[in-house]
Amino acid sequence: MKNSIENQFIEHLVRTLPRSGEQMNALQEADAEIIRTGHEGLLLALTMDSIAEEIESGLYSDPFLMGWMTVLVNASDLAAVGAQPLGILVNETLGPEADDAFLEQLQQGIAGAARACALPVLGGDTNFAGHTELSGCAVGILENNSYLKRTGCQAGDLLYASGPLGLGNAFAFQQLQNQPPSVSYQPQPRFAQSALIRAFASCCMDTSDGLLTTLDQLMRLNGLGFEVNSAMAHYLHPQALELCQNHALPLTTVLAAPHGEFELIFTIPPEQNKRFLTKAQQINWQPIQLGTVTEKAGLRLRTEKGIVKPDTTAIRNLFDEHHGDISGYVRHLIEYIKQL
Amino acid sequence: MKNSIENQFIEHLVRTLPRSGEQMNALQEADAEIIRTGHEGLLLALTMDSIAEEIESGLYSDPFLMGWMTVLVNASDLAAVGAQPLGILVNETLGPEADDAFLEQLQQGIAGAARACALPVLGGDTNFAGHTELSGCAVGILENNSYLKRTGCQAGDLLYASGPLGLGNAFAFQQLQNQPPSVSYQPQPRFAQSALIRAFASCCMDTSDGLLTTLDQLMRLNGLGFEVNSAMAHYLHPQALELCQNHALPLTTVLAAPHGEFELIFTIPPEQNKRFLTKAQQINWQPIQLGTVTEKAGLRLRTEKGIVKPDTTAIRNLFDEHHGDISGYVRHLIEYIKQL
Repeated sequence: MKNSIENQFIEHLVRTLPRSGEQMNALQEADAEIIRTGHEGLLLALTMDSIAEEIESGLYSDPFLMGWMTVLVNASDLAAVGAQPLGILVNETLGPEADDAFLEQLQQGIAGAARACALPVLGGDTNFAGHTELSGCAVGILENNSYLKRTGCQAGDLLYASGPLGLGNAFAFQQLQNQPPSVSYQPQPRFAQSALIRAFASCCMDTSDGLLTTLDQLMRLNGLGFEVNSAMAHYLHPQALELCQNHALPLTTVLAAPHGEFELIFTIPPEQNKRFLTKAQQINWQPIQLGTVTEKAGLRLRTEKGIVKPDTTAIRNLFDEHHGDISGYVRHLIEYIKQL
Repeated sequence: MKNSIENQFIEHLVRTLPRSGEQMNALQEADAEIIRTGHEGLLLALTMDSIAEEIESGLYSDPFLMGWMTVLVNASDLAAVGAQPLGILVNETLGPEADDAFLEQLQQGIAGAARACALPVLGGDTNFAGHTELSGCAVGILENNSYLKRTGCQAGDLLYASGPLGLGNAFAFQQLQNQPPSVSYQPQPRFAQSALIRAFASCCMDTSDGLLTTLDQLMRLNGLGFEVNSAMAHYLHPQALELCQNHALPLTTVLAAPHGEFELIFTIPPEQNKRFLTKAQQINWQPIQLGTVTEKAGLRLRTEKGIVKPDTTAIRNLFDEHHGDISGYVRHLIEYIKQL
């Protein structure tokens, strides 16, 4: 399976950087970095994510959402490795638009997500510049020397999502194409689900970049394929489904574009499935089965037209190849999906 | 002592944010955030700092220096609390100027400082935008439940710097006033010194924002004053001294402006002084004595003209009051210093 442009770029960047002997995960192998502390069984989970492109492109124009997402994107990475949240540091680079009302909303977004994610704000940094950019660095704790990673699934394992998909891209479509608001976007942390997933799953990754990017990454890392044979109506978020119908978009669009909904994608070995579902029911959670892991590489995806085989790497690269021309990207993405 | 504009703004921002019950330091009380892990005696030190204004203002135009400082500013905070470095996460938001040659230099700067600071790069994030901004989040470990903080000094304690001062502001003057290069600026980590300081000092803070800002913060937090009665020629960096002489600048200028040299400022109780200096000699380190802690609030500073009493809060605020007009700021700062 050929490498994506993004992965190649990251591998190029880190090539000369010193790595840590205490780091348990290889590059790209987990949603957060897993570090030994020297104390029996105690691992740290660390992740750092910035909200820069989303602000500059106009995808996030509401300061509350900017603040919320700064915390949530980092919390989601901690949940995806099964860590307990310890806290978050936040850097705020504030541009000229950051007046008192903006700041009030921004801080409410940060505070709201910090509470929802049980990620107290430990500290951070404030800068003033010509642009607004927000970064978070979240820390979590893992006991018993174990964590969830992106690798480890086997052919025959069942593929699940923690919740309905497609809302991130539906929101992006509405926001960037200046459509009237019909989609409300405020992803929630998945720590309760993650605690269960950690006990049963063979691999896990969040959909920060949308479903197809997540599946592409998991396939590449595991050297396996996926058959997603559930009907999309079964796992798409109702608002995403409605947006596609209203705009005559192929349903695959909201799974293929790179703005995710921050659900967890994970695999459960078949012999664990019954116990897993029983436990999930006990916390009032209904995981959504998408399909199965296959020996054969590549994705087989059930769409409105039947089973298709999208080239997930080509789909990922399409975004990078458009260098920020969002309209051109969306047009090409829809063309690609229609000819599948 | 009245509060600085910067401190007031930070207090306003954090007012609504949830704090952690596991955090040992109060707001502003330490250079890094100190968090309990639940494991006997093990504390985490966490810090997050961005290089944004420095890039936008043209203060850092060399990509190697941008990378170096992204790591160094965070390492310096870990050293100031006496932590052992564990690793760093780096966010790179890359602007249009970030071509292959730029990236090569940037990564060399990050890698070089990461090696010098024993801070392996654990992970991070990459974004593409209209501007370049770099952030680091560093993690350190503290054993035995203890750390260095900004509070704790007593009247009569001796005031020290880990090395010569003024180079950060001398570099800034040269860089922003388009002077020919005579100052070379590449701050070094102070972990070896910090290990000793931790064993003897009653408080510690780095000079990330220059000496006078550091003293201002320490005086405010401790409710005490400082008498800096060493001759400036004794503790100014030779290149800073030379720059002041060449440009007929009062020597106080390179201590008063907010671009620091990332040395450690700390206080030693007099009864510990002899043992401290013996230990320092054993690691070939010569701490520079600046003066003493005084019961009386405020700073008494020996300059070319004798002892003066600068209003350190007014000096700090001057920078914020100029809202990025650097030339106006420098002019006013020099005027203020001349009339002392």
